[in-house]
Amino acid sequence: MKQRNVLVLFFFLMITVAQSQQLSDYDLWLKYNLIENSELSDSYSKITNSISISSESEVFKNLKKELSLALPKILNNKTKFQNGFTNETTLLIDTFKNLPTDLKPKIQKSIDSVNEEGFIIKSIAFNNKQLTIITAKKEVGLLYGTFKLLEFMQLHKPLTDIDVVDSPKIQLRMLNHWDNLDRSVERGYAGFSLWNWQKLPEHIDQRYIDYARANASIGINATVLTNVNANALVLTPMYLEKVEALANVFRGYGIKVYLTARFSAPIEIGNLETADPLDSEVQKWWANKASEIYKRIPDFGGFLVKANSEGQPGPQNYGRNHVDGANMMATALEPFGGNVIWRAFVYSEHDDTDRAKQAYDEFLPYDGKFKDNVVVQVKNGPIDFQPREPFHPMFGALKKTPLAMEFQITQEYLGFSSHLVFLPKLFEEVLDTDTYQKGKGSTIAKIIDGSLYRNKITVMAGVSNIGTDINWTGHPFAQANWYGFGRLAWDPYISSEQIADEWLRLTYNTDDAFVEPVKRMMLTSREAVVNYMNPIGLHHIFDTGHHYGPGPWVDNLGRPDWNPVYYHQTDTEGIGFDRTTSGSNATEQYAPHVQDMYNDVTAIPEEYLLWFHHLPWNYKLKNGEILWDGIAIKYQEGVDQVKTMIKTWDASKSYVSEQEYNDVKMLLQIQLKEAQWWRDACLLYFQTFSKLPLPDKVEKPTHTLEYYQSLKFPFAPGIKPKWD
Amino acid sequence: MKQRNVLVLFFFLMITVAQSQQLSDYDLWLKYNLIENSELSDSYSKITNSISISSESEVFKNLKKELSLALPKILNNKTKFQNGFTNETTLLIDTFKNLPTDLKPKIQKSIDSVNEEGFIIKSIAFNNKQLTIITAKKEVGLLYGTFKLLEFMQLHKPLTDIDVVDSPKIQLRMLNHWDNLDRSVERGYAGFSLWNWQKLPEHIDQRYIDYARANASIGINATVLTNVNANALVLTPMYLEKVEALANVFRGYGIKVYLTARFSAPIEIGNLETADPLDSEVQKWWANKASEIYKRIPDFGGFLVKANSEGQPGPQNYGRNHVDGANMMATALEPFGGNVIWRAFVYSEHDDTDRAKQAYDEFLPYDGKFKDNVVVQVKNGPIDFQPREPFHPMFGALKKTPLAMEFQITQEYLGFSSHLVFLPKLFEEVLDTDTYQKGKGSTIAKIIDGSLYRNKITVMAGVSNIGTDINWTGHPFAQANWYGFGRLAWDPYISSEQIADEWLRLTYNTDDAFVEPVKRMMLTSREAVVNYMNPIGLHHIFDTGHHYGPGPWVDNLGRPDWNPVYYHQTDTEGIGFDRTTSGSNATEQYAPHVQDMYNDVTAIPEEYLLWFHHLPWNYKLKNGEILWDGIAIKYQEGVDQVKTMIKTWDASKSYVSEQEYNDVKMLLQIQLKEAQWWRDACLLYFQTFSKLPLPDKVEKPTHTLEYYQSLKFPFAPGIKPKWD
Repeated sequence: MKQRNVLVLFFFLMITVAQSQQLSDYDLWLKYNLIENSELSDSYSKITNSISISSESEVFKNLKKELSLALPKILNNKTKFQNGFTNETTLLIDTFKNLPTDLKPKIQKSIDSVNEEGFIIKSIAFNNKQLTIITAKKEVGLLYGTFKLLEFMQLHKPLTDIDVVDSPKIQLRMLNHWDNLDRSVERGYAGFSLWNWQKLPEHIDQRYIDYARANASIGINATVLTNVNANALVLTPMYLEKVEALANVFRGYGIKVYLTARFSAPIEIGNLETADPLDSEVQKWWANKASEIYKRIPDFGGFLVKANSEGQPGPQNYGRNHVDGANMMATALEPFGGNVIWRAFVYSEHDDTDRAKQAYDEFLPYDGKFKDNVVVQVKNGPIDFQPREPFHPMFGALKKTPLAMEFQITQEYLGFSSHLVFLPKLFEEVLDTDTYQKGKGSTIAKIIDGSLYRNKITVMAGVSNIGTDINWTGHPFAQANWYGFGRLAWDPYISSEQIADEWLRLTYNTDDAFVEPVKRMMLTSREAVVNYMNPIGLHHIFDTGHHYGPGPWVDNLGRPDWNPVYYHQTDTEGIGFDRTTSGSNATEQYAPHVQDMYNDVTAIPEEYLLWFHHLPWNYKLKNGEILWDGIAIKYQEGVDQVKTMIKTWDASKSYVSEQEYNDVKMLLQIQLKEAQWWRDACLLYFQTFSKLPLPDKVEKPTHTLEYYQSLKFPFAPGIKPKWD
Repeated sequence: MKQRNVLVLFFFLMITVAQSQQLSDYDLWLKYNLIENSELSDSYSKITNSISISSESEVFKNLKKELSLALPKILNNKTKFQNGFTNETTLLIDTFKNLPTDLKPKIQKSIDSVNEEGFIIKSIAFNNKQLTIITAKKEVGLLYGTFKLLEFMQLHKPLTDIDVVDSPKIQLRMLNHWDNLDRSVERGYAGFSLWNWQKLPEHIDQRYIDYARANASIGINATVLTNVNANALVLTPMYLEKVEALANVFRGYGIKVYLTARFSAPIEIGNLETADPLDSEVQKWWANKASEIYKRIPDFGGFLVKANSEGQPGPQNYGRNHVDGANMMATALEPFGGNVIWRAFVYSEHDDTDRAKQAYDEFLPYDGKFKDNVVVQVKNGPIDFQPREPFHPMFGALKKTPLAMEFQITQEYLGFSSHLVFLPKLFEEVLDTDTYQKGKGSTIAKIIDGSLYRNKITVMAGVSNIGTDINWTGHPFAQANWYGFGRLAWDPYISSEQIADEWLRLTYNTDDAFVEPVKRMMLTSREAVVNYMNPIGLHHIFDTGHHYGPGPWVDNLGRPDWNPVYYHQTDTEGIGFDRTTSGSNATEQYAPHVQDMYNDVTAIPEEYLLWFHHLPWNYKLKNGEILWDGIAIKYQEGVDQVKTMIKTWDASKSYVSEQEYNDVKMLLQIQLKEAQWWRDACLLYFQTFSKLPLPDKVEKPTHTLEYYQSLKFPFAPGIKPKWD
C-alpha cells in the first residue's frame, strides 16, 4: 500500500468517524473508543488475543458478539475465538464447573464468595503463560464479567494482574417503564415507548437488542414493560405473544420481563363480574393467566401492581385489603417462581390525614402478612419524587416485609429532559440515610440490600427515562442517570462521584482535564435544581398535571393534596408544612432519634426545614439571614449554579465533538431560562404573602406574577393520555 | 507510516463502517458511499478538486457543508474550497449574475430557459482547462444543482461532458405533516412527530437539519408542519416562536414553512365571539395574525385549511361558503405574498349523495371565484387514498381555479409501515391519467403543472410518512415513497421505474444484479397490495377508525358513508357500487369520453369495475372467470406476489448488510401474514353472500369469519388522539 493511499485511508477514517458522530449518542456508554496509547493497547491485545468460548448458548453468543464489536474498535485488532480451551488461549470465558480441572483450585476460594450472578476476572500464570479467566457460577455472570473487562479497558485500567471478585448486592435490579400500549410514556421526556407493539412479534427492532446490551452492561436484570397505570389488554394473547418476543431477546442478556397487572383484569378481559381477591373464580382466573404466561415465557418475572391508588382498581373496591390482593396474585405466580411487586404509593381522597403519612399508616399493620414472593415497593420519599425529600418512613419500619426501593430516573419533577441533573447524587443521599430503625447504622442501603433484616428478596427499581429519542434519554447527560441507577442497584454503596467519573470517561473523553471540572458540574447539578425549584424543604409546588414549571399558586384541584398550596401552607405569617408534633405529626413515623431531629427546628438539617416546619418569614436561619431572604437567595443560587454549569461546559468544548457540545449547550440554555422562571415565579408569588423586598443579590423578575400565572402548557410531554 | 499500521487502519476503517451500519438507514438516499472504481473516482476528483464558492449566505454555507460531508466519503478526498473564482478552480458554484463576465455567454442560452428555481450544470473548456459550473438565477438553484451533482456521482454517471439544464415543473413541492402538538401523528406509522415543541425554540435537533437536507436533495421546497385537523394554539406567540426557529433552519435549504389554520381560531385564541369570515373583526384578526407571523417569518408560506369537513369548523358554520372563507384568509396573507391552500376533501353527513360526488358538486360552482393566492387541494381520488381509485373528477373540471394534487405518502390504507408498497407507481398512474377535459391529452400531470390551464400557482402536496423512527419512515422501502414523491413533484413526467432504479442505487447498492430484480419487486408491489386488499375496484373495506386490516362487514358507524358496507354494496345477487347512470351517476362528473368508458361495463378497465358497477356474482370477466372466482383469484394473486417479493429479497441478501436484510425480511413476513388475513377475511365475508365455493387455486382460510370479525386493535397507530 502506497503512502498516498495511507493518507487517503486515514482521511477517510476521520470522515467516517465524523459521520457516525452524528448519531454517536446512540451508543451510550458503550462507545468502545480506540485506545491511542499503544503500550496500553498492546497490553490489552495480549490478553484478548485468543479467546476461548465453549458454548453456543444465547448468553455466550451475546458476550461473543459484544467482544467482536468492542475489541476491534478499542484495540484495532481482529479478535480470534476458539471453541474450547487450548494452548493458545489468553482469555478463557467459562462457568466454573466447566473450567479445566487443574485451574479450578486457583479460583475455588473466589467462586465460593460470589453469588449466583457474581463473576470473577482473574489473571493467573498457567503453563508458563499469562492467562486471564472470566468465570462464574452461571452464564449470566460471564456476561457481566465480559462487560466489566470491556469497561476496564475503556477506563484504561491496568489488567495485567487483574483480580476482580464481584457480585450484585441486590437481586432484582429493575427498570419500571411507564409505557402505555399507545406508545405514549407517562412522565416520559425522551420521545415515546421503545416497544413497537404494532410490529411485534415479527419485527425485532435493533433497539430492543441495544437496550438489552446497555442494561446488561450495568447489571440491570429485570424490566417491567408497561405502565403501573395498567391496561389489562397486555395480558391478552395478542399482546402476550409480543411480550414473549421481547422476552426472547432479553433472556440472552440476563433480563427477566415483568408486566403490570391491572387488578380489574378478570372483569375487563376475563368476563368475570368481580375482581374480588377472595372470590374463587377470580383466584382461578389469575392462576390460569399465570400458567398461560409461563407457558410462553418460562422465566417470566411476575407482576408489578398499583392498586387502590390514584383511581386504579384494587382489593379495597371489594372491601379487601392490600394483603388480600397481593397474596392472591402471589399464590397464582408461586408455582412458577414469580413475584408480586406491590406498590405502596397509596393515598386516599377520603382521608384528610397528611398525605406524607398515609402509606405508612396503611401498610404498617400488614408487616409480616404478605406471602414470601411479595415485595412492597416504596418510593424514596413520602410524597412523590421531589428534588429533595426526607426518606420514606416505611423504610426500616416494616421489619418483616421486603421493601423495594423505587427511584425515579425520569425527571418528572427535575426539569424533564431539558435539565442536566445528575441523579445518582440524589440516590446516594437516600441510600446513605440512617433510619435508626435498628439502631445507628440502619441505613436505607442496608434495608434495600437485605442485610439489615435478612430479607429473602431484594429489589431496587428505577422508573425509566428511556424513550425513542436517538440518544435514548432526551438529554445526553440523562444517560448518566440510567447508568448510575444500574451501578447503584448492583452496589448501593458506591459513590456518585465514582459513577460520574466512570460515565464521563466511557461516554465522552478520558482526559482528566475534561473529566474533573465536568464531574464537579454533574455533582453540583442536583443541588442546583433543589435551589432553583424547591429550596429549604419546599416541595410539590409544580404546575398541575404535567408538572412542568412552577405553580405554587395552584389551589383549584379536585382534592386538597393535589394542590401546591397544601404543601407550602404559605400565609402572611410564614411558610412551610408543620409536620411536627404540633402539626400533622408525620415525624412520629420515624425512629425516635430521627423524630427528635426532625421535630427540633434547631437540629433539623435546613434542607428539610419547610418540609417539617411552618416558620415565620423573619425566622433566623443558621447563617443569620431571615427565612424570606434565605429562600430568595437559594433561588438565586440555583440560577447562578446553572450559569456556572454553562461556563464549565463552554470550557470543555475542545474535548467533545461539535455536535455534542452544541446539543448540551442548547439544553443548558433552556435550563437557565427555566431556572430563572422558577425563581421569579415562586418569589413573586411568595412575596404576596411575605410583603418583603427581594435581597439585593437576587435579580429582579422579568415578568409579573400574573404573566407567570397565565402560562399554560396543554401539550407538555409525559401526561397521561385521556384514553387510559 | 508502517505497513502494519496501514493494515490496522484499514481494519479499523471496516469496523467503523460496520458500526455506523447499525444506524445507516438514518442517512436515507444520501449515503455517499465510497466509489471503488478508481478511474471513475479519479475523474470525479478532477472535477471537484478545487471548488469556488463566493458567498457566506445560509444557502451557500449549506451547500458547502454538503460537499464537505459528501465528497470525502464518495472520493476519499479532502476537498479544497476557494473564496471566489481563481485559476485553480475546477468547480465553480455561483449565481449567473455573479459569474465572471467572459463565462456568461457560454451559459446565457441555458439560463434563459430555466425558471427561478432551476439550475445548470455544465462542463466547459476555459483557459485551456476543464471547468465545471453550477449556476442558477437564484441561490436555491445552486443548492439543487449541488445535490444533483452529488446524485450523479452516487449513480456513477459520467460527468466529463455534463450539460444539465433543469427546472422544477411545479412551484410548490410540499409535504403535509399531519402532526399534532402532542407529537402524535394522525396516520403516522413511523414513530411520532419530528417537531419536539417542548424543547423548541432553543434546542435545534440535528434531525431538523437532516430533514431539510433530505428534502432539498429531492427539491421539496415547502412543508406544512401541523395536522389539517388543526389546533389553533400553533398560531399563538408561544408556538410561533418555535415555528420561527424551524423556519430559520429550513430557509437555508430553500424550504418555506406553512401552518394549518383552524377556522375557529379567532374564537379559540382571539377572544372573538365569531369566526364568520364576513365579520370585520374576524377579518382584522386574521390580518393582524398574518402580520404577526410575517414579522417573525418573512418568507412564511401561508395556511393550509381543512374547513367544514369531518367536524372541522369552517365558513358554513356561519352560513358562508368556501369562497368566503378562503378569500378572507387570502386577503390577510396577500400583502405578504402568502397563499391559502384550501382542501376540497369535504363530504356532509347531511347529504346522502354518493360521497364520491360531493366535493365536485360543492366546488364546481366556485370555479373562478377564489382570489389569486388561493389554491384548492384535491386528493388524487374521490374517496380517500385507497390502494386504487379512479381520478378525482375535479381534476380538469375546475378550469379557472388552480388545483393542488394531494397524494398520501403515509400508507393509511396501504399496509401502514409494515408493507413494502412502492407508491410512485400509484402516483404515476394518477398523473398519467387523461381527464379529456380539454380534449385528448388533458392529463392530470398537465393540470397540476399548470400547463393545461395556465394556472398562476402550481402545487403538489404529499401527506408525509416521516416520523421519529431512526430510519424516518418505519419501513426502509418507505423512504423510496418520500424520495419518489419529491422527484415527481419536481417533474411529474418521469417514470416510476426510473425513480425505483435511482433510489435503489443511492440507498443500497449500484450493482445491476441487485437493482434489476429488486426494482421489479418494487414496481409490482403496488399491484400486489391492490390485489390482496381491494381488487377489481373494491374500496374502503378497511376496519374502523384505525383502518388497520379488513373490515368489509362493518355497518355500525355513525354515518352511512363511513361504513364499508356502503362501499361494496354486497348482497346475494352481487357486489359493487353502481355509480353509472342507473346508480349514483358519479360518472356524470367526468368528461364525456370518460363517462362513456366508465358507464360501459365492457369498456371500463377491470381494475375500476366494482367502483362503478354493481354486478352479479356470476358476471363473466374478460378472462372468462365468473366475478366471484375473479375476486378470489385476485386476492390469492396478491398473497402470491408477496411470496415472490420474499423470494426476491432472499436472493438479494448478499448485496445488503445483514441488518438491512433482516429488517426488510421481518417486515415482509408481516406483509405476508396480513395479506393472507385480508384474503381470508374478505373472501369468507363475501362468501356469505355469494354462497359459492373458493376456486381451487385459492388457499383455504386458516380461521373462521367470526375470528376475523372478533379482532380488535384499540392501539393501532395513527389514530386521532381523543384530546383533539
